[in-house]
Amino acid sequence: MKILIVNGPNMNLLGKRETQIYGNVSFEEYFSQLILAFPSITLNYFQSNVEGELINIIQQADADGIVLNAAAYTHTSVALRDCISGIHIPVVEVHMSNIFSREEFRHESLISPVCVGVISGFGLNSYALAIKSFIEK
Amino acid sequence: MKILIVNGPNMNLLGKRETQIYGNVSFEEYFSQLILAFPSITLNYFQSNVEGELINIIQQADADGIVLNAAAYTHTSVALRDCISGIHIPVVEVHMSNIFSREEFRHESLISPVCVGVISGFGLNSYALAIKSFIEK
Amino acid sequence: MKILIVNGPNMNLLGKRETQIYGNVSFEEYFSQLILAFPSITLNYFQSNVEGELINIIQQADADGIVLNAAAYTHTSVALRDCISGIHIPVVEVHMSNIFSREEFRHESLISPVCVGVISGFGLNSYALAIKSFIEK
Amino acid sequence: MKILIVNGPNMNLLGKRETQIYGNVSFEEYFSQLILAFPSITLNYFQSNVEGELINIIQQADADGIVLNAAAYTHTSVALRDCISGIHIPVVEVHMSNIFSREEFRHESLISPVCVGVISGFGLNSYALAIKSFIEK
Amino acid sequence: MKILIVNGPNMNLLGKRETQIYGNVSFEEYFSQLILAFPSITLNYFQSNVEGELINIIQQADADGIVLNAAAYTHTSVALRDCISGIHIPVVEVHMSNIFSREEFRHESLISPVCVGVISGFGLNSYALAIKSFIEK
Amino acid sequence: MKILIVNGPNMNLLGKRETQIYGNVSFEEYFSQLILAFPSITLNYFQSNVEGELINIIQQADADGIVLNAAAYTHTSVALRDCISGIHIPVVEVHMSNIFSREEFRHESLISPVCVGVISGFGLNSYALAIKSFIEK
Amino acid sequence: MKILIVNGPNMNLLGKRETQIYGNVSFEEYFSQLILAFPSITLNYFQSNVEGELINIIQQADADGIVLNAAAYTHTSVALRDCISGIHIPVVEVHMSNIFSREEFRHESLISPVCVGVISGFGLNSYALAIKSFIEK
Amino acid sequence: MKILIVNGPNMNLLGKRETQIYGNVSFEEYFSQLILAFPSITLNYFQSNVEGELINIIQQADADGIVLNAAAYTHTSVALRDCISGIHIPVVEVHMSNIFSREEFRHESLISPVCVGVISGFGLNSYALAIKSFIEK
Amino acid sequence: MKILIVNGPNMNLLGKRETQIYGNVSFEEYFSQLILAFPSITLNYFQSNVEGELINIIQQADADGIVLNAAAYTHTSVALRDCISGIHIPVVEVHMSNIFSREEFRHESLISPVCVGVISGFGLNSYALAIKSFIEK
Amino acid sequence: MKILIVNGPNMNLLGKRETQIYGNVSFEEYFSQLILAFPSITLNYFQSNVEGELINIIQQADADGIVLNAAAYTHTSVALRDCISGIHIPVVEVHMSNIFSREEFRHESLISPVCVGVISGFGLNSYALAIKSFIEK
Amino acid sequence: MKILIVNGPNMNLLGKRETQIYGNVSFEEYFSQLILAFPSITLNYFQSNVEGELINIIQQADADGIVLNAAAYTHTSVALRDCISGIHIPVVEVHMSNIFSREEFRHESLISPVCVGVISGFGLNSYALAIKSFIEK
Amino acid sequence: MKILIVNGPNMNLLGKRETQIYGNVSFEEYFSQLILAFPSITLNYFQSNVEGELINIIQQADADGIVLNAAAYTHTSVALRDCISGIHIPVVEVHMSNIFSREEFRHESLISPVCVGVISGFGLNSYALAIKSFIEK
Repeated sequence: MKILIVNGPNMNLLGKRETQIYGNVSFEEYFSQLILAFPSITLNYFQSNVEGELINIIQQADADGIVLNAAAYTHTSVALRDCISGIHIPVVEVHMSNIFSREEFRHESLISPVCVGVISGFGLNSYALAIKSFIEK
Repeated sequence: MKILIVNGPNMNLLGKRETQIYGNVSFEEYFSQLILAFPSITLNYFQSNVEGELINIIQQADADGIVLNAAAYTHTSVALRDCISGIHIPVVEVHMSNIFSREEFRHESLISPVCVGVISGFGLNSYALAIKSFIEK
Repeated sequence: MKILIVNGPNMNLLGKRETQIYGNVSFEEYFSQLILAFPSITLNYFQSNVEGELINIIQQADADGIVLNAAAYTHTSVALRDCISGIHIPVVEVHMSNIFSREEFRHESLISPVCVGVISGFGLNSYALAIKSFIEK
Repeated sequence: MKILIVNGPNMNLLGKRETQIYGNVSFEEYFSQLILAFPSITLNYFQSNVEGELINIIQQADADGIVLNAAAYTHTSVALRDCISGIHIPVVEVHMSNIFSREEFRHESLISPVCVGVISGFGLNSYALAIKSFIEK
Repeated sequence: MKILIVNGPNMNLLGKRETQIYGNVSFEEYFSQLILAFPSITLNYFQSNVEGELINIIQQADADGIVLNAAAYTHTSVALRDCISGIHIPVVEVHMSNIFSREEFRHESLISPVCVGVISGFGLNSYALAIKSFIEK
Repeated sequence: MKILIVNGPNMNLLGKRETQIYGNVSFEEYFSQLILAFPSITLNYFQSNVEGELINIIQQADADGIVLNAAAYTHTSVALRDCISGIHIPVVEVHMSNIFSREEFRHESLISPVCVGVISGFGLNSYALAIKSFIEK
Repeated sequence: MKILIVNGPNMNLLGKRETQIYGNVSFEEYFSQLILAFPSITLNYFQSNVEGELINIIQQADADGIVLNAAAYTHTSVALRDCISGIHIPVVEVHMSNIFSREEFRHESLISPVCVGVISGFGLNSYALAIKSFIEK
Repeated sequence: MKILIVNGPNMNLLGKRETQIYGNVSFEEYFSQLILAFPSITLNYFQSNVEGELINIIQQADADGIVLNAAAYTHTSVALRDCISGIHIPVVEVHMSNIFSREEFRHESLISPVCVGVISGFGLNSYALAIKSFIEK
Repeated sequence: MKILIVNGPNMNLLGKRETQIYGNVSFEEYFSQLILAFPSITLNYFQSNVEGELINIIQQADADGIVLNAAAYTHTSVALRDCISGIHIPVVEVHMSNIFSREEFRHESLISPVCVGVISGFGLNSYALAIKSFIEK
Repeated sequence: MKILIVNGPNMNLLGKRETQIYGNVSFEEYFSQLILAFPSITLNYFQSNVEGELINIIQQADADGIVLNAAAYTHTSVALRDCISGIHIPVVEVHMSNIFSREEFRHESLISPVCVGVISGFGLNSYALAIKSFIEK
Repeated sequence: MKILIVNGPNMNLLGKRETQIYGNVSFEEYFSQLILAFPSITLNYFQSNVEGELINIIQQADADGIVLNAAAYTHTSVALRDCISGIHIPVVEVHMSNIFSREEFRHESLISPVCVGVISGFGLNSYALAIKSFIEK
Repeated sequence: MKILIVNGPNMNLLGKRETQIYGNVSFEEYFSQLILAFPSITLNYFQSNVEGELINIIQQADADGIVLNAAAYTHTSVALRDCISGIHIPVVEVHMSNIFSREEFRHESLISPVCVGVISGFGLNSYALAIKSFIEK
């Protein structure tokens, strides 16, 4: 089973900025832990700040499932939504924070309606839960 | 570790009605599976169609975590919200369906802002993922 | 043919309060008249001020049709809506007053979309018309 | 007792178009059945696609009651509303389909607040129920 | 100077219905008084309940000014608006009642932005004031 | 008959600023013309840029009618509205420009619902028409 | 004089949870103080988390006045509103916190329009002020 | 192949009014050019200012395709929408101007959702493009 | 203890206008009664129709508490709100009528969020209750 | 005459995904057909999933006209709008599907107001019609 | 060059209240510093809590530029807006705080559209920057 | 002191297009002038039409302050907002035009709440004022 993790804009700052909130673990470090935690799964990872590059990578994904944290594009990108509904690979939407307890404009996700499901609020563990949702399906 | 699962209105119909959509497993049957799957966790289960009874049970809960599928009350109950923010036990909100791909009025949850996180769209597996979120914390 | 009439909150005040508007006939008295008027129909009646009890009774109904005056819950109960769409018995929504000539917030019914039809504005006669709609179907 | 039935735009297509949905009975045929079903009532019928002609006929109506299916004008005609509130004959609003389970813009009726009541969702039987509502008043 | 007075839907009921509110003077009677009051002005009058006929008469008007009481079409007719902005004759919008103290939906006029001005609330005298506004220009 | 004309904020600039739009006649000059034009009427005039002073003068008015151009306060002053509904003297609302063909926020008048009527769009002549409306009542 | 105090959902947590905000006095303790403070008044007290039970108790109240803190149901219960407008006993709405300085959705009360008045923001003292409002009437 | 062109309200003013904007070619003249440009197509043309007459002509159309410029009724007529969805002839919506660069209220078309497609902004050429869209299908 | 009572626009009409609604007691008379009723409190009183003068007096207040009936400015004055949040004296907002049962635009108070609490609906007694709220604090 | 065709995000999937809806012709194949169909026109084609790259190519376009299918960016890109209004080349907006019969959020186009016109709903033929609109201008 | 600085309501509290936020420098003290910092500019200063007095002073200003901090009236005063657009002196809008990071209702300024520009968020330095904007023009 | 100036989409057209509005000075030329005007400041400049590239450059900025003209992305980019709030360098938002006097959709800035302040409406001088705001801090 191959799973692709895709992170959106500003996720490359994780572990470097606002460490008092998000901790000082970078996603690359966490990704190493995930590889160890799921030895039977082939995991790949991609991050970009450019909306169109996220679309490119999702369109070309060779995977059985995609775990997508679209970050800010969650709330503004119809293009990502169209991309997800245009491919055949199931996508699970994840967020580290509980987006529903943040600012009003973060409560609406344009991509949720075309994803399998949503996991929001469990910190980095949101990614592990998403991977498990694919395993147990 | 003790976890209480609370189901809201009409969840007692699970497995009996609309089986072509939700399958023919009742929540009671699924709950038996959960007990087997998590032998180290003390699991309890409660369901009611009455908003105030759900509040009663949550107020009196003796648990380390609550997994709550408030069903229709998710979208209308300020009282449940106040109840959750008034207790000290962390609550994870779950939904079997992806509520964001359903009718517009199901996109807003009044309780999300006071829950730890949200897991929506993974069928009965949403409950198992929620339990795991407590274990791994 | 069995028909269950279900009345929502404050309908138990009928004939006792605001008699200058609604008359001094209680629903129990009117129900006796209905039994006489429809001798070939098995009629049952239930009233509650508790949203969840209305759901309980509708879920367990043994009837060919339900005549539902959800009163105030008409405008606030997603749970009743889910209950109606979860059962197989057809439901006709009735109101004694013409809800569309009352306050703005009474113009929207959350349950109309999942009912067979709506009869509003004919006083107690709304119930008789609803029963006839079942007979003539 | 004299009752006038008035049908609005596109109701003349009934029984000729979209027969899989609305059946292949034209309103004229159904009207013949109504005359037989209510021998003690003098029934008249008028249809027009022109908003102003509907107003003309309602203004000049010689009837004890009007059964009005304003069709599309239900949602757009303040003029019909003013016409109804300007005459002394009671008007019952009917719809064949349950307008509340159709598109959002069909949920609001401009004429409901000035009608006696609303009967919506019972197919052609909506007309018969409306006539009965006059008889039983 | 030639002035055309155009009345919209249901204005033909004036003096016949709701006489306790609007008085028992028909517009035809009032029009006779206007002719006497403005001997130097050639006055013409037209009324219709049909939106398109109002457009026809305004398009073909041979007048130096039009006094228009569009009644209910005031609030719904983009077609009348386009008609007024498409001709070269100035139009003054009049209403007998103060439309701003009536229902919310009567507060917005689609035709006001393309009229010279608005006179609302002076009963039948609104027409005389409108004629005077043309004379004094 | 005594009529008080009250002008709101910035009306004192009339004839001095934006003369290409509003002409170079000050309201004081126009007021002299009005006195000549209505010899049988006792006319008084007051202007202020201060909302509360307008209220003071209207409360203390000794007049049979008030012609009020509240200018910008038309759209923002609940206090003026309460003042008008609290006195017994009828008030006619006037505007020189057609406020309905200007910016969206000028389309709503808070004082219209408590005035006798509205005259808008006839330049300085709006005041004369308002005076005539009192004479002919 | 008999006064009934009715408390809504989660008010039973008072003094037990969030004591840093609401203090550690339970309502039962405060109620004892009220009895002492108003020796000439017969005071009764009822609390429930169930919307329908609050309606039951209010419908059956034997009192000259009701002091109601509907808590979360303040913002969602049309049924409580109908209940209050259906009885003859005057109801005063109270809140311990100033609901207008809390979240947006707590600013609107569905029951205020049918209550005598509102007292909000004075902590437990809101109840005493409400009782005094009945005494001094 | 037979194509019917239907023009809505005020389109009869084309070439006669506002010629600096729309040119001085009447639609009748342009229609002659269309006949020459499409010799293999049987073209017919109808215009009315009356909403209901447009419905009548569309219901009775004997054509393989309809080119409809509903003008102002584009934005207000649910009746035209129902008419189009009730017939089997495909309809292409055209506008001479780009309606999306005009006033806000012209941005929404009630008929677009039931038409094959929309062509807006190409002046009289919009009609020719619509005819070509039928030919090339 | 020194308490300042501040009344906003049109409150000077109390007892002189609309006496059938508000009674024929002026606030000055009622103020004399208040002084007698609270002999241990130093009471002062100020009224103005000018928003800025209300701000001036509140900024300069020498008091332990302010009882403010901002009347119409309640709904429009951000300046009063800023004034209240800029001073250190606690302010209690009062209204004689129940503003929540009046027009929609009176339901929102701009100053409530920065006041200690709100007392609305108890006639002149609202002021006495507000004074008591200061005493019992 | 030189015409540039620009396609936005996910248009590169055409003919490869959702072939049951959009057919199995890729845009590259269709582009070859267009070159044959318009031998006298120099046609160029560009596609990107990156919003900014679309802006780059449009800014640098050497063409007499641009045919733009902005796909998802139609509804979200103010930057594309500014780009189009900043250049001198006329742009025609095209869509394969009728965007007005799809989800609500696809009904508004941010770029329509700055384009020459819109052609929507004719499948791949929308592009050919757009090219013809340039030829016939 | 003469520049007039105008401060709106509650700005006279600067340096006296909320000193932990705004510092303990009064505007008068800061104004002295400004005079020293811009020796070649004739600076004048005016403050009022009364909306109409601000209008008076701006109408009568003898200056080449006005620096206006309308404070709370920024968000509510159409009268100030009309005043600014009625004079010929350019006005620069300033705010000490960044109004866009404060409450929602402070995000909209009624006067911005008629000012030259806006400078918001630089504390007392906002005034100096505004003066420089006039010098460098 | 090092300051980075970042320009968003279409700013590279400055001086080349719409020169009658924005002048014929390119930003590169203006940037040369800025370097001369602020000899003690190290100024750098970056422009891109790609949202994600703007984020990349801001994330990696080596500066004491950033002057950001996000152009169209001002109104649509949550990603830029998150980027600004994720870094430690203060950002001043600038606009050449007064965005508040342009179209409605340009009045809201998504990035203002996380910037130090806003300077809008002073043409190219807005950049110089922003630099000065950093110097004087």
